[in-house]
Amino acid sequence: FPSRLPNVGTTIFTVMSALAAEHQAVNLGQGFPDFACDPALTDAVTRAMQGGHNQYPPMAGIPGLRQAIATKIEALHGRQYDANAEITITAGATQAILTAILACVQPGDEVIVLEPCYDSYVPNIELAGGVVVRVPLTPGSFRPDFAKIAAAITPRTRLLIINSPHNPSATIWTAEDMRALEDLLAPTNILLISDEVYEHMVFDGAEHQSAARFAGLAARAFIVSSFGKTFHVTGWKVGTVAAPAAMTAEFRKVHQFNVFTVNTPMQYGLAEYLQDPTPYLQLPAFYQAKRDLFRQGLAGSRLKLLPSTGSYFQCVDISAVSDLSEADFCQWLTREIGVAAIPLSAFYGDGFDQRVVRFCFAKKDETLRAAIERLRRL
Amino acid sequence: FPSRLPNVGTTIFTVMSALAAEHQAVNLGQGFPDFACDPALTDAVTRAMQGGHNQYPPMAGIPGLRQAIATKIEALHGRQYDANAEITITAGATQAILTAILACVQPGDEVIVLEPCYDSYVPNIELAGGVVVRVPLTPGSFRPDFAKIAAAITPRTRLLIINSPHNPSATIWTAEDMRALEDLLAPTNILLISDEVYEHMVFDGAEHQSAARFAGLAARAFIVSSFGKTFHVTGWKVGTVAAPAAMTAEFRKVHQFNVFTVNTPMQYGLAEYLQDPTPYLQLPAFYQAKRDLFRQGLAGSRLKLLPSTGSYFQCVDISAVSDLSEADFCQWLTREIGVAAIPLSAFYGDGFDQRVVRFCFAKKDETLRAAIERLRRL
Ligand SMILES: CSCCC(=O)C(=O)O
Ligand SMILES: CSCCC(=O)C(=O)O
Repeated sequence: FPSRLPNVGTTIFTVMSALAAEHQAVNLGQGFPDFACDPALTDAVTRAMQGGHNQYPPMAGIPGLRQAIATKIEALHGRQYDANAEITITAGATQAILTAILACVQPGDEVIVLEPCYDSYVPNIELAGGVVVRVPLTPGSFRPDFAKIAAAITPRTRLLIINSPHNPSATIWTAEDMRALEDLLAPTNILLISDEVYEHMVFDGAEHQSAARFAGLAARAFIVSSFGKTFHVTGWKVGTVAAPAAMTAEFRKVHQFNVFTVNTPMQYGLAEYLQDPTPYLQLPAFYQAKRDLFRQGLAGSRLKLLPSTGSYFQCVDISAVSDLSEADFCQWLTREIGVAAIPLSAFYGDGFDQRVVRFCFAKKDETLRAAIERLRRL
Repeated sequence: FPSRLPNVGTTIFTVMSALAAEHQAVNLGQGFPDFACDPALTDAVTRAMQGGHNQYPPMAGIPGLRQAIATKIEALHGRQYDANAEITITAGATQAILTAILACVQPGDEVIVLEPCYDSYVPNIELAGGVVVRVPLTPGSFRPDFAKIAAAITPRTRLLIINSPHNPSATIWTAEDMRALEDLLAPTNILLISDEVYEHMVFDGAEHQSAARFAGLAARAFIVSSFGKTFHVTGWKVGTVAAPAAMTAEFRKVHQFNVFTVNTPMQYGLAEYLQDPTPYLQLPAFYQAKRDLFRQGLAGSRLKLLPSTGSYFQCVDISAVSDLSEADFCQWLTREIGVAAIPLSAFYGDGFDQRVVRFCFAKKDETLRAAIERLRRL
């Protein structure tokens, strides 16, 4: 039978993690921590299981977790979301994004993505029957180019997807960027998906500029986040979507017929753990130290460090080191040098190669040191 | 913005569970156990979390769990599935079914459903852009009518969805039924989703006739099951899909961009727990005793018991008790008598009302006795 996704293979993250395992490489490819989460969090899940919280939770998520998210958004960004009608718990951010797209994109609707972008967005749009409109971020700086975005808008544009802190470039959008977007969208009824899964990894004193902070964006946005990234449990697959009630109603229509509900004991554990904001308030400092360790380690090497102002990624320019394509370089680096990385070309529809690869520094210091030692040989 | 699912409200299960909670009714509506799962299972999950299994698992599921499923299918049904290329772990059966439909249904393709059917199938087909073709099961007996199915097949038919043991009717398909379907589909290239989530709830010595037992069906089938139903953990949201390698490859293309992966500690816990087949081998007797308790309790009442040969449901004819529609009767029963049930009309596109409602007997004996006492007053 004909494929619904003829251009899709296995995700680059799966491919590189498998290659890293095969060659016993230090895996700085796929973005996940190699250290343990807080035992207080797993203990809370164990208590939930032992307390009998093992059956279907409410379809939108348990009230305690939705309320904890609403409280957090109000504390951090000053906007009130109704936990009942505007917050939904999802099986991770990827499921949230597909579900939002299926809920609002009709066949033929145009959806703007800013490249490089996370590799699920484009197939998600295709599954909904939408038309993908690709707008590049400015090469080199990865800054949004609002003239280019404006030029891509047509009467058929239904949705725009943004992502800050940005995967893979490790850049963040400023308040001015968000206001420029707010102005640009003001005369339109274009919806927004704001992928904010790295919201708690912003460095050097900068603040995360959530779409929740900007009334004109919040009114049209599905704001997506992920507990996996924030609490070092990427395998738990629990995320959230905050959106105005009318958008949430459509989101839940699809959500209930996709996963229906999300793992109950994990929801109880997370609701309890979220009562104390310390873990996520300390996250910027925690990851900034890892970023600095990694950057200092590579400072004398021939890999050119790009800025890393948010997320748990560090991009490097490889042009002084290799003539290989980004993809071939990553394969070679994994096999021969023993460090896995991700080519930025995997985040572009046309495979644009700017000689930049991405490392993940969400790793134990000793893992980062082992990688540094190998990378300095280049 | 226009709705992608304009005809969809909140699922009947959510509506009735909320009403049951509001009126402190005995909830025999939504299908979930009100008793605890085996502590050995939650202990295995706790060990997995404490052992550090909290990051992304492999996209298709952890090898140990996939192998345990392949071993179980071979032991029970005599067919070998390659754990690596033909088994995928999903975030529950509902996600598995949407993902399978998105993977193989092109816009305009026809998909045959047999009504009454689970309420996610039709919106799932609509999200894929497919055309829903409804064929009724025989009223009264709920037996498949192969002449009607044959008449519904056209050159555009891409997929047929079957479900045995059947929700909501609590009937099962015999080996003869499965062979008749095999013969009917033999000259076609129609794919099959076989929803077998109640596979371990088959009574009176009957055997579950998995599509895996029939070569001509297995070669074209996504066989869907659910650990939630089998191990009394409906809130864990872990399911499986077994399908030939080419179909699995397309399934995983969509799966990786829907949920990407499924909760890691739950997968480890389930893989360990599955090493002992006793829990699922004992399930038929366990649920048959509950069915018999419930049926005996209602034997003298004016609710007419339909056969229950599989699943954890019991349907009753209400015509001797009430003139209300099924839906109104269920509302009334919840509010006034204090027992929640599900109207069968919720499983038909046109709301067909045959004066039958569904009770779930996956409840503690004391819960069933409390419901019986109230229902006998009717
Ligand atoms: C969902 S797997 C990949 C993890 C990730 O977000 C990344 O590495 O970019
Ligand atoms: C997914 S919620 C409903 C549970 C169920 O399968 C049913 O009650 O039919």
